Amino acid sequence: MQETPKKKSALGWILCLISMAAVFCLGLLAASITERKAEVASIYNNKKVDLAAVPVESKNDKWGLNYPREFETWKMTAKGDFKSKYHGNQIQDVLEERPDMVILWAGYAFSRDYTAPRGHMHAIEEMRGTLRTGNPGIGGAKDMQPGTCWTCKSPDVPRYMAANGPAKFYNQPWSSLGAEIVHPIGCADCHDAKTMNLAVSRPALKEAFERTGRDISKATQQELRSLVCAQCHEEYYFRPADKYLMFPFDKGQTVEAIEAYFDEIKFTDYVHKLSKAPILKAQHPGWSMFLLGPHGQHGVACADCHMPYKSEGGIKYSDHQIMSPLAKISSTCQTCHRESEEFLKNRVYEYQRAGFETRTVAEHELVKAHLMAEACWKAGATEAEMEQALKFIRSGQWRWDYAVASHGASFHAPAEYQRIISHAIEFGLKAQLELQKVLIAHNADFHMPDVSTKAKAQAYIGLDMPKLEKDKKEFLNTIVPKWEEQAKKAGIL
Amino acid sequence: MQETPKKKSALGWILCLISMAAVFCLGLLAASITERKAEVASIYNNKKVDLAAVPVESKNDKWGLNYPREFETWKMTAKGDFKSKYHGNQIQDVLEERPDMVILWAGYAFSRDYTAPRGHMHAIEEMRGTLRTGNPGIGGAKDMQPGTCWTCKSPDVPRYMAANGPAKFYNQPWSSLGAEIVHPIGCADCHDAKTMNLAVSRPALKEAFERTGRDISKATQQELRSLVCAQCHEEYYFRPADKYLMFPFDKGQTVEAIEAYFDEIKFTDYVHKLSKAPILKAQHPGWSMFLLGPHGQHGVACADCHMPYKSEGGIKYSDHQIMSPLAKISSTCQTCHRESEEFLKNRVYEYQRAGFETRTVAEHELVKAHLMAEACWKAGATEAEMEQALKFIRSGQWRWDYAVASHGASFHAPAEYQRIISHAIEFGLKAQLELQKVLIAHNADFHMPDVSTKAKAQAYIGLDMPKLEKDKKEFLNTIVPKWEEQAKKAGIL
Repeated sequence: MQETPKKKSALGWILCLISMAAVFCLGLLAASITERKAEVASIYNNKKVDLAAVPVESKNDKWGLNYPREFETWKMTAKGDFKSKYHGNQIQDVLEERPDMVILWAGYAFSRDYTAPRGHMHAIEEMRGTLRTGNPGIGGAKDMQPGTCWTCKSPDVPRYMAANGPAKFYNQPWSSLGAEIVHPIGCADCHDAKTMNLAVSRPALKEAFERTGRDISKATQQELRSLVCAQCHEEYYFRPADKYLMFPFDKGQTVEAIEAYFDEIKFTDYVHKLSKAPILKAQHPGWSMFLLGPHGQHGVACADCHMPYKSEGGIKYSDHQIMSPLAKISSTCQTCHRESEEFLKNRVYEYQRAGFETRTVAEHELVKAHLMAEACWKAGATEAEMEQALKFIRSGQWRWDYAVASHGASFHAPAEYQRIISHAIEFGLKAQLELQKVLIAHNADFHMPDVSTKAKAQAYIGLDMPKLEKDKKEFLNTIVPKWEEQAKKAGIL
Repeated sequence: MQETPKKKSALGWILCLISMAAVFCLGLLAASITERKAEVASIYNNKKVDLAAVPVESKNDKWGLNYPREFETWKMTAKGDFKSKYHGNQIQDVLEERPDMVILWAGYAFSRDYTAPRGHMHAIEEMRGTLRTGNPGIGGAKDMQPGTCWTCKSPDVPRYMAANGPAKFYNQPWSSLGAEIVHPIGCADCHDAKTMNLAVSRPALKEAFERTGRDISKATQQELRSLVCAQCHEEYYFRPADKYLMFPFDKGQTVEAIEAYFDEIKFTDYVHKLSKAPILKAQHPGWSMFLLGPHGQHGVACADCHMPYKSEGGIKYSDHQIMSPLAKISSTCQTCHRESEEFLKNRVYEYQRAGFETRTVAEHELVKAHLMAEACWKAGATEAEMEQALKFIRSGQWRWDYAVASHGASFHAPAEYQRIISHAIEFGLKAQLELQKVLIAHNADFHMPDVSTKAKAQAYIGLDMPKLEKDKKEFLNTIVPKWEEQAKKAGIL
C-alpha cells in the first residue's frame, strides 16, 4: 500500500497532539513545583520575630512563631515515648524494676532515684524533681551537684555561657543556676538563630574534637544530624578540679579506650559504699556505641530514625517529636527496609530481649561481688588482699554500665553490646573468685542479703528514702517557685 | 507562520524514521535473547550422558560431561578457601594455633587432630587422613568410628543408602565402608539426576523436619538453596544404640533448645578425661546460627553468598567453587550492599576479631575449670562435691563449642554469637567458683600446668602423637590403596 500525503499529514497531526498533551502535563507539574517553592519561600521570608536579636534566644515559643511545624512536633515530646515491649510505662521506675542497680550504685546519687528518660519537654521538671539533685536550702542542706549538671537540660545554658563563659557556668553550686535555667531542651540547643543551620552549642564535644585533631566546623550536614544529638547523648565526666564538663575521647571512643583514659588520669566517679571499689559511672555513651553498630557504620544519622521527615502541603520538615523509631516505622525503618512493621519490630525486640538477658546476669554477678567484698572488709580483709578484686569490680561495672547506659545500644550495636557485657560478666565473676579466697582465708561465711526489691536494697545501703522524698516535696513547693519568680522578673522566662 | 502540508509531511517522515530505528534496535535485542535461550536449551537438550541410568550416579566427572561450567568451578574447591585476615593458611592447624582446644577435647578424637575445613574436593582425602578416624587394621587396631562418620563426605553415601538403607550404612565400623565411599562431596549430594532440581539427599534433615511437623518437600527453591547445605552444615549426634545420625531439633534450633533436648535424653558425647564432666560436642550448627542472624532473617540463602551467579556468554550459572564470599565481593556482598570492597571486608573482619576476642576468654576459663576439676579429683573430692561444677562445665563448654563450631557465626549472627559466648564465660567461671571451694576444703593447691602449645597439651592429656602419626602413615600407605583397588574392581570408582 502506498501512503498518500493526506494520510502522512494525519499521522503528523496525531503525534503533534500527543506531544502537546505531554507538554501541557509538564506545565502543570512545573506550576505545582513553583507553588511549593513559593510556600517554602514564604516561610523563610515572612518570619514573625527576629530570633537573632539577642545573642542566644532561649525562649522556645518565640522560635515557634517562625517555625510552627517544628514547634508543634517538639511540644509533642511532652507526651512521653513509645511504649516498647521492653520499655514500659510513661514514668518507668528503673530501680523498682531492677533493684540490683540500687546496690551497684551504692554511694552514688543514682541509687536514690532513676527513672527512664522522658521527652525533651520534661527536662527541667525532671532535673528539679529527681532525688539525684538533692534539696539544697531545705533544712540547711547544701548542694550535692555542681552547675555542670544543668549542661544538657536547656537552651538557657548556651545563653548563660555566651554571657559568662562555660567555666563560670560549671563551677558553681547547682542551685545557684535555678533561676537561670528554666526552659526545657529546645530550639537554641541545636540551631543557629540567624541561619537556622544545625549547630553544636555545647563546648565539650567541640573541645574533644579539637584535642583529637578533628574540626567540627567541617562537619557535613549529615554528620551534624548526629552531632547535635551527640553533644549531649554521650559519655562525659566532670573534671575534678573545676567541675568542667569533658568528653573522655583522647584515646578513642570504645569502652576500652575510654577506660584507659580514665585509668591514666586516675579518675573515679565514686568509691562504692559497700565494696570500696573505685567506680567509673558511665554516662549514656549513646553516640559512641551507635557509631560501632550497623546503622552508624553505614552513615545513618540519629535524626534519620528519631526525627523522620514529614510532609505537609508543599512543606517537608523534620519531625521534632524525638522518640523511638518503632512508633513511626513507616517513616523511619521502612524508608530503607522493605519488610513488614511486625517483622521489623520483632527484630528490634529480639535484640532488646537478648540484651536484657545478658545484662541481668552481669548485674547479678556484680551485685554479688560488691556484697562479697563488703563481707570481706567486715571480716578484716586488708587492702592488699582486696586490691585485685576491686580492680575486677571496677572493670566489670564500667563495662556493664557503659553498655546499659548507652540507651538503645542493644539495638544500635547489638554485637558490640553483647561483647561488652560478656566482659562485664567475666570481671564480675573473676572478682568473686578473688573474694571467695579472701573470705575463706578469714574464715568468714557469706550469705546473700535480701536486696530483692528497691525498698529493701535502698534500706540495705542506708538511704533514708522517706526523708529524701519529703524534703524534695518541700524543695519543689518552696524553692522552685522562687526560681521561677526570679526568672520572670529578670525577663528570662 | 502557517504550516504548509509539505512541512507537516516532512515532520511525519522524521518521526517515522525515528520510530523505525527504535523498532530495529528492539529487533536486535530480541534476536540476542533468542540466541541466549537457544544456548541454554542446547545445554539441556544435548546432554551427553544419562545420569539417571542408575539410582544414584556418584561419579562427579560423569555429571561434569553434561554440566561443564558447574563441574569446572566445583573442581576449583580443591584450591582451598580464601585466606582471610583471621583464617590463615591453606591447611590451618587449629590445635597449633589454639592449644586450649586440646585440653577442652581431652578424651575425644578432636584433641588429636583438628585442621580448618578445606574445599569439598578434599572431603575423602581428609576423612582418611585425619587422626580422628584412627588406623583400623594397623597393629591390630580396631575402628574408633562408626560408618556414620562418612555421612556427609561423598555422593557414594546416597548411592549406598539407596541400595541398603540408612540404618545399615550407619551401624557398621567406619573402615568397612572404605571401599564404598570414594568420591568427594559432589553433584549427587545436592541434585536430582533426572530433573537437576536441588534435592536433600541425606535422611537426618528430612526426618527432623517430619518430627517437628515441617514438610521438606514443600520447601521453595530459595529455601532449598540453604537446605542442601543445611543437611550437612548443622548440629547432629549419633543415636547411641545404633549410631543413627539425628538432628536434635525436637525442641527448637537455639543453643538452649538443643541443650534441653540433649539433657532430656541424657545424652553425652564423651566424659572429659581430666575433669570427668559429661561433655556435649557441638558439631558445626552453621545453619541454625545463620537463621538467627541478619542475613538469615532477611531470607538470604547460603548459595546467595557462597555460590554467586556467574555469566558466561548466554549462560548464567551458580559458581560451585563454594568458599568465603569475601573472595568474590563484587558478585556476593555487592549484589546488595553498595559500599566499597574494603569497607565490607573490614566490617566482616571486625565481627571476626570481636568473636576471637571473647571466645579466647571463654576457652581459657573453661580450660582452667577442667584443670581445677582434675586437681579436685586428685585431692580426693567426692562426686557430690563435684556435681555442680561439672554441670557448669558442661553448660559452658556446650555454649563455647556451639558458637565456635558454627563456622562463620561470628559474622553470620554476630550478636547471637556474642550472647552465647557470654554465657560460656559465665558458666566457665561459675565452675571455677565451685571448684575453688572444693580445692580449699581439701587443702589442695592449684597451679596451672604448662599446656601452652599443642605438643605440651597433647602430652599432658596422655596422647602418644608420634605413634598415632606413624600408624596413620602406614594406614594411608597400606589400607587405603586396597580400598581404592576394591572400589575400582567393583566399578564404583
